[in-house]
Amino acid sequence: MEQKLQELKVRLAEINDLNGAIALLNWDQATYMPPGGAAARGRQMSTISKLAHTKLTDAAVGKLLDDLQAYADSLPYDSDDAGLIRVTRHDYEKATKIPPQLLADFYSHSAAAYQVWTVARPQNDFAAVRPLLEKSVDLSRQIAECFPGYEHIADPLIDFSDQGMRANTVQTLFAKLRDQLVPLAEAITAQDPIDDSCLRQHYPETPQFDFGIAAIKDYGYDFDRGRQDKTHHPFMTKFSLGDVRITTRANENNLSEALFSTLHEAGHALYEQGINMDFEGSPLAEGTSAGVHESQSRLWENMVGRSLNFWQHYYPKLQAAFPQQLATVPLTTFYKAINKVQRSLIRTDADEVTYNLHVMIRFDLELALLEGSLAVKDLPEAWHARYQSDLGMRAPNDIDGVLQDVHWYGGFVGGAFQGYTLGNIMSALFYDQAVKAHPEIPTEIAAGQFGTLHTWLRENIYRYGRKFTANELIERTTGSPLTIEPYMNYLRSKFGSIYNL
Amino acid sequence: MEQKLQELKVRLAEINDLNGAIALLNWDQATYMPPGGAAARGRQMSTISKLAHTKLTDAAVGKLLDDLQAYADSLPYDSDDAGLIRVTRHDYEKATKIPPQLLADFYSHSAAAYQVWTVARPQNDFAAVRPLLEKSVDLSRQIAECFPGYEHIADPLIDFSDQGMRANTVQTLFAKLRDQLVPLAEAITAQDPIDDSCLRQHYPETPQFDFGIAAIKDYGYDFDRGRQDKTHHPFMTKFSLGDVRITTRANENNLSEALFSTLHEAGHALYEQGINMDFEGSPLAEGTSAGVHESQSRLWENMVGRSLNFWQHYYPKLQAAFPQQLATVPLTTFYKAINKVQRSLIRTDADEVTYNLHVMIRFDLELALLEGSLAVKDLPEAWHARYQSDLGMRAPNDIDGVLQDVHWYGGFVGGAFQGYTLGNIMSALFYDQAVKAHPEIPTEIAAGQFGTLHTWLRENIYRYGRKFTANELIERTTGSPLTIEPYMNYLRSKFGSIYNL
Repeated sequence: MEQKLQELKVRLAEINDLNGAIALLNWDQATYMPPGGAAARGRQMSTISKLAHTKLTDAAVGKLLDDLQAYADSLPYDSDDAGLIRVTRHDYEKATKIPPQLLADFYSHSAAAYQVWTVARPQNDFAAVRPLLEKSVDLSRQIAECFPGYEHIADPLIDFSDQGMRANTVQTLFAKLRDQLVPLAEAITAQDPIDDSCLRQHYPETPQFDFGIAAIKDYGYDFDRGRQDKTHHPFMTKFSLGDVRITTRANENNLSEALFSTLHEAGHALYEQGINMDFEGSPLAEGTSAGVHESQSRLWENMVGRSLNFWQHYYPKLQAAFPQQLATVPLTTFYKAINKVQRSLIRTDADEVTYNLHVMIRFDLELALLEGSLAVKDLPEAWHARYQSDLGMRAPNDIDGVLQDVHWYGGFVGGAFQGYTLGNIMSALFYDQAVKAHPEIPTEIAAGQFGTLHTWLRENIYRYGRKFTANELIERTTGSPLTIEPYMNYLRSKFGSIYNL
Repeated sequence: MEQKLQELKVRLAEINDLNGAIALLNWDQATYMPPGGAAARGRQMSTISKLAHTKLTDAAVGKLLDDLQAYADSLPYDSDDAGLIRVTRHDYEKATKIPPQLLADFYSHSAAAYQVWTVARPQNDFAAVRPLLEKSVDLSRQIAECFPGYEHIADPLIDFSDQGMRANTVQTLFAKLRDQLVPLAEAITAQDPIDDSCLRQHYPETPQFDFGIAAIKDYGYDFDRGRQDKTHHPFMTKFSLGDVRITTRANENNLSEALFSTLHEAGHALYEQGINMDFEGSPLAEGTSAGVHESQSRLWENMVGRSLNFWQHYYPKLQAAFPQQLATVPLTTFYKAINKVQRSLIRTDADEVTYNLHVMIRFDLELALLEGSLAVKDLPEAWHARYQSDLGMRAPNDIDGVLQDVHWYGGFVGGAFQGYTLGNIMSALFYDQAVKAHPEIPTEIAAGQFGTLHTWLRENIYRYGRKFTANELIERTTGSPLTIEPYMNYLRSKFGSIYNL
């Protein structure tokens, strides 16, 4: 048995090495690659992705998993070997159940849909993307149907990024959240708007980056096992547990962008850097789901990085870095500016309170498309209707409506959105547990110390990688299933105080 | 036949994609990788190298080559398809004739030998590396013996990097060169030494890089298909024909380092960027040999970049970049400083005249070790004797003698050195042909224009990639075999004038 397990680990390490190389090819494409490298880069990534897929779906892997099942069953659920076999089985099933031809159709359709969207959006031309989006829905359904036994057709798609989450439970949770968020957003936006002009002065790039780097070093991001580079869109990527990188971008006319994207990506990176090093080279060596990942990026960006405690320590430093811009701006003005809530049409520009409303609209529309209860031709209007009811706004066109971002036009419908809001909900859940265990955390944050919080998160979440699912982590840390209460309490308390509700 | 050729090309493109990824993994390791990434990086490179090797040695490749041989024979020698089949056959034979176990032994021995050398060198402890070097010689012989039918046991090893070159012809050529170089070096070093203190002032890094970048842009290095980054040791690397990168390093106390390493690596890069784009993804898309590659780096570094013509145009610009350091230094002083000749013990520090003496010592000692006419135990003393006779110096120890650089301690003995001197010899040969065809080239260089030279090199050398061997390129451009005369004429004329011989 030991020998079979060893053979499995060798195969998985090889796949892991290929995935690391793909991640590097991607990172380089976004950071330093000269334009002339683009064509070959696409081929290189595709070749290595295919090799990794072939190696994962090798029948020998299935045989090894079968042979090892009795051994896995004999182990405690939380043993590393049991976890490895369980997670590999999960990946193997996912990879082998989709016929290669369907996958190939999906990839070539993705590329075509993306191309058409880039032209259609500036022309406000939903009609141009409509047949492609219909095909995307159809292909997404076909992929879901490779996993029979689902409760809702979106379940297999959701399971790709948020293993164990189901459409119906998420939808119920989201409905409750919306019922409380819509009135909160209405109450806030009925107040006088916050003046955030202090953020919109000229801020040179270099001290912006320097400040962000100093802050995430304090968070515990380890620059010996990572680095930060500039890209058009910020992201976190990992080549191994010893090399977890983040990227950022600066807007010299808006202080928020680089700062909070750095804190956000650092949150993702702290998670990956905190995984048990013994998992290196195996599928356990990754964050367990999109939702849990987002819970960490949002926790470090928002619950910590936009808190008054945090800025009690860091605002004098920020003022020292930008004396001309901030010397006469009081802390409370700055704090309110970085927490300004406003209705908007674009998801990616949204604040902490309204962001989830955008996400939940997308999630519900996705489910309706997949169910067939909404036709693609009716999508633009369904979009406008939901924005009207949830956010009290209607986009003047589809450019800022259903065409606003690349999601859906990358070929896949379903499973991409729930993680954002699940992450927000979980961020409060985990933070509350950490503070319950260590009530000194808020005071430490106000002193620029994050060790207690970081350690709690590492011990209770990070180190497990994929050994436990999101639901298992929540159950283990809170003793109960996922609930929105801590998150709503957090929002009500924070924004109630900011907006004097 | 078309279908088999297509199948071969698809297989080769896959191998090429893997090799591109390996090159990127290497580049990143040398440029941006944080220290924590090192362990996994080694595994990633090893995994992908093994995959590339497995794919090249696949029996299906041999079968395709057999099936395509009659087709190849029916084509003109210089057709692209014939070249592709010929070069692939060559690579396939090289890769399949060495038993996998021997290769594995060689790799694990390499790593061990390198480790021991890093400790032994600072301690001047040749005895510590001796048994490992004996094993290196033995393994190198075993690898050579996988290619029976050689004239000299070093031939198969030389053929790895300089296809078609043979130990005996190279040795004869080198003997002639030494006979002329030793007296030239003696005559030069009998003169008063050149004062090169103008180079050894403080030169800030940024304007050094800016100057080098401007110069290689003028050379024709295409930054849309490449870039320059900083590394500990400068190198050129290629991920595809559209992405050919170079690296450099700056020494703020010596102007020569960054400048000439940039010109040198740009020469390598011009070669790779100049290859016929139709060869992309195939084994033809590479410089044809170590020697021809070095001929281009040395041509652009030395024959162009250290010429008086070049500096007639660029020296005023350099003075403008460093007015404090150079405003009062006349062009002739600067020109002599960058061309200073002096005896030295360390190959990598050597000037244009003495460099080849170092290389030829190493080459001859390698042959003797492989032949068995020199025992490893006698190597340190043989080294000292040759340095005494060729360079008139004797190292005070082995640190600056036989232990001076990593070559030989990387596990391989034979085939690594001839390319440096072959390259120098060829650089003059090719440059002469270009000037014969376009006598305006020197005048253009004096005006900072390199288009005619670059175009001639691209048309006659670069674009062919590996379609022709070094000997074939020489024969095609000069109509005769390799000869040292143009190179000796170049050295005699240039250094005769600098040193008033």
